[in-house]
Amino acid sequence: MRDFLPEDVRRREYVIGIIKRVYERYGFEPLETPAAENLETLMGKYGEEGNQLIFKILKRGEHEASGQADLALRYDLTVPLARVIAHHQATLPRLFRRYQIQPVWRADRPARGRFREFYQCDVDALGSTSPVVDAEVCAAVSDALTGLGFADFTIRINHRQLLTSVLKHAGIPDELHGTALVAVDKLDKIGREGVASEMAARGIEAASTTRLLEAFKALSEPGGIRSVPLDGAGNRAVDNIEAILDLLNATDAGRRMRIDPSLARGLSYYTGAIFEINVPDLAGSLGGGGRYDNLVGMFLGQNVPACGFSLGLERILVVMGERNMFPPSLATSPADVMVAVFEPAGMPHALRLAQSLRASGLRVMVYPDADKIGKQIKYADTQRIPFVAILGDSEIASGTVTVKNLTTQTQTTYDQAAAGAAILEGLTHRG
Amino acid sequence: MRDFLPEDVRRREYVIGIIKRVYERYGFEPLETPAAENLETLMGKYGEEGNQLIFKILKRGEHEASGQADLALRYDLTVPLARVIAHHQATLPRLFRRYQIQPVWRADRPARGRFREFYQCDVDALGSTSPVVDAEVCAAVSDALTGLGFADFTIRINHRQLLTSVLKHAGIPDELHGTALVAVDKLDKIGREGVASEMAARGIEAASTTRLLEAFKALSEPGGIRSVPLDGAGNRAVDNIEAILDLLNATDAGRRMRIDPSLARGLSYYTGAIFEINVPDLAGSLGGGGRYDNLVGMFLGQNVPACGFSLGLERILVVMGERNMFPPSLATSPADVMVAVFEPAGMPHALRLAQSLRASGLRVMVYPDADKIGKQIKYADTQRIPFVAILGDSEIASGTVTVKNLTTQTQTTYDQAAAGAAILEGLTHRG
Repeated sequence: MRDFLPEDVRRREYVIGIIKRVYERYGFEPLETPAAENLETLMGKYGEEGNQLIFKILKRGEHEASGQADLALRYDLTVPLARVIAHHQATLPRLFRRYQIQPVWRADRPARGRFREFYQCDVDALGSTSPVVDAEVCAAVSDALTGLGFADFTIRINHRQLLTSVLKHAGIPDELHGTALVAVDKLDKIGREGVASEMAARGIEAASTTRLLEAFKALSEPGGIRSVPLDGAGNRAVDNIEAILDLLNATDAGRRMRIDPSLARGLSYYTGAIFEINVPDLAGSLGGGGRYDNLVGMFLGQNVPACGFSLGLERILVVMGERNMFPPSLATSPADVMVAVFEPAGMPHALRLAQSLRASGLRVMVYPDADKIGKQIKYADTQRIPFVAILGDSEIASGTVTVKNLTTQTQTTYDQAAAGAAILEGLTHRG
Repeated sequence: MRDFLPEDVRRREYVIGIIKRVYERYGFEPLETPAAENLETLMGKYGEEGNQLIFKILKRGEHEASGQADLALRYDLTVPLARVIAHHQATLPRLFRRYQIQPVWRADRPARGRFREFYQCDVDALGSTSPVVDAEVCAAVSDALTGLGFADFTIRINHRQLLTSVLKHAGIPDELHGTALVAVDKLDKIGREGVASEMAARGIEAASTTRLLEAFKALSEPGGIRSVPLDGAGNRAVDNIEAILDLLNATDAGRRMRIDPSLARGLSYYTGAIFEINVPDLAGSLGGGGRYDNLVGMFLGQNVPACGFSLGLERILVVMGERNMFPPSLATSPADVMVAVFEPAGMPHALRLAQSLRASGLRVMVYPDADKIGKQIKYADTQRIPFVAILGDSEIASGTVTVKNLTTQTQTTYDQAAAGAAILEGLTHRG
């Protein structure tokens, strides 16, 4: 887990601001949930590996010594959403669309762009099984990435029922589907041979693995999505993928979409279409999502169809940093102007002047000590503060202030009431 | 810990936005720290009561069964700041001024405006012992509250060294100062008699308590701050309070200040001036702060003077809610316009229209199912979405869209390219 110093925070807020604006344009509303959930809310929702990675919080008070945990840190934003839907169903719209941008915690091994505390930027739409919903969440994340300046991302799409059908076609027994999917999910990273040896280790026959990988290959060919004989559920899954793509082809996101029949997604709660976003220069994904029509039912006792997409803030930041995608204006100094004073008696005048400069919209720091004026100006310079407002005895007596422009090394004396406008003017001309 | 539904989040973001803007005007820069700190970073910094209220996180992996904790949830934003200063000293400005708006967690008994997860909005300035720093943090929170619409708050000021000097004057032994301060801190809540009985229970003689309360009374009288004989440190504390007030009298915050010689503040790390903000209609405070010149030294081995102020977001929200201080525009609907379609074949057209409406800046929801048009319009109405854009066969054939204004119950047909501007115009006229 990391500290974010001012420049980091400004970059994060820049990215979050753009993502939020796009999500709001899609009619998603903001939701926030607590960092800690009841432990039993989270357990069993993320598969066995997920269970292991949940941070647990010790019971308080007399039970603390027992070492028992009753709370746990949020592991993703989807399970808390499902709990919220169940808990607040009466007050939420039937077609609730929410976005949520908050940290989650996983006791995972850190890697490039992967941390134990990281932010997810989620959109989810509830209450409808229509492919319009799947298409809209894909379009929203596509717009968000485009708004951030990404021009080379791909959204891969697959379907859990298509996967099941292909696994059956390959002759893999039902009870090994879960374990096979975990291996298949790594196809991008470890290649066909890696998957084959993982499958063997998991007790899947070599002939089945070969048949499975052949089927994936055939389905991946352009127009090949109907090339493998599937059961009814598999064919309906292909229909669903094609309906989603037809809708997306009416939007800018259409050209980002690519069918990937081997895309599996790790989380166990998906039931329909699944998605993942990639860029060429990052091994992992920038985000992923899918349809999970049964998860809310685990809390409510009654299913509510749902589909969502999650962007990973940290990975977006890593790629944007490496590609220099941040606007230069983000690397700001702490203030636009620093007020400098010759002696302690001038300090109240400095605070009064600072108040007036702030009222004109400037970011103002008051140098707190009556150090030598050269030392004060040097401090402003090291902090890249572009202007210093100097209050000496004569300025104080005459209600003026001498404004030194550290970029041009020029200085001008103004009436104190006029200094704010003059500095704002100077800032604009700096660009 | 609570969920924040869309209207809650919008209110929170409104308040945070104003506070951030003011803090930035004062030259404070944003900082964020992880939710979890090493347990030993937090232990012993908040007094015995604080230690009890820290949420601890179980060690992971093989150690989990041991019940041991190595991490803990952030208890405030000041101790993490001190750790950050020690850790990043080389890269931070000598006069680092930061703001930090993040949640903290305390295993406290919940009460009105008090929760186990709550946000603090902190400003802190490091590197100088000048009273200018103390004055600026007070001025910043005063401006923030004024910006939120508060007109009746008071900032009480006291000084830890003045308290110590008064305790000595009352004849209370040094080793009981800490426990006496805890009792004194409750004077506002439990009154003189309550404090007297607490003092007795803590082993402080009745004569000392009487003398202490008399001293507080005398010091509280207008101009009474010099009315009690104090030692040298006590007199320097009074000088310091007066210097801070002189500076603040040059700003709008001056008229908010009031000396309160009995103000104690619970946290153990304060060393100089201490502050607390109150409004008449809330029993607790809206925030507090003070100078803590030794805390960074506990991490760095070398003291860095520091002074800060923390506003409590939840309490501000409680009071603003009760007083109806939020702008009505915050209670927005999820979207400005909902796109409605007669049949599934129209859906791609709906997505294309939605994209064009979003590009004009509108918040747009696509109704996902081909329900009867009356049902769709009724849904928009219940969600207070003011406009519905209807795509029937004839509209799709002619590239038009029928826009129904649910407020006026009128409808007009536009070219699809012109609909966005027309709806924006309609939104503006609604006020």
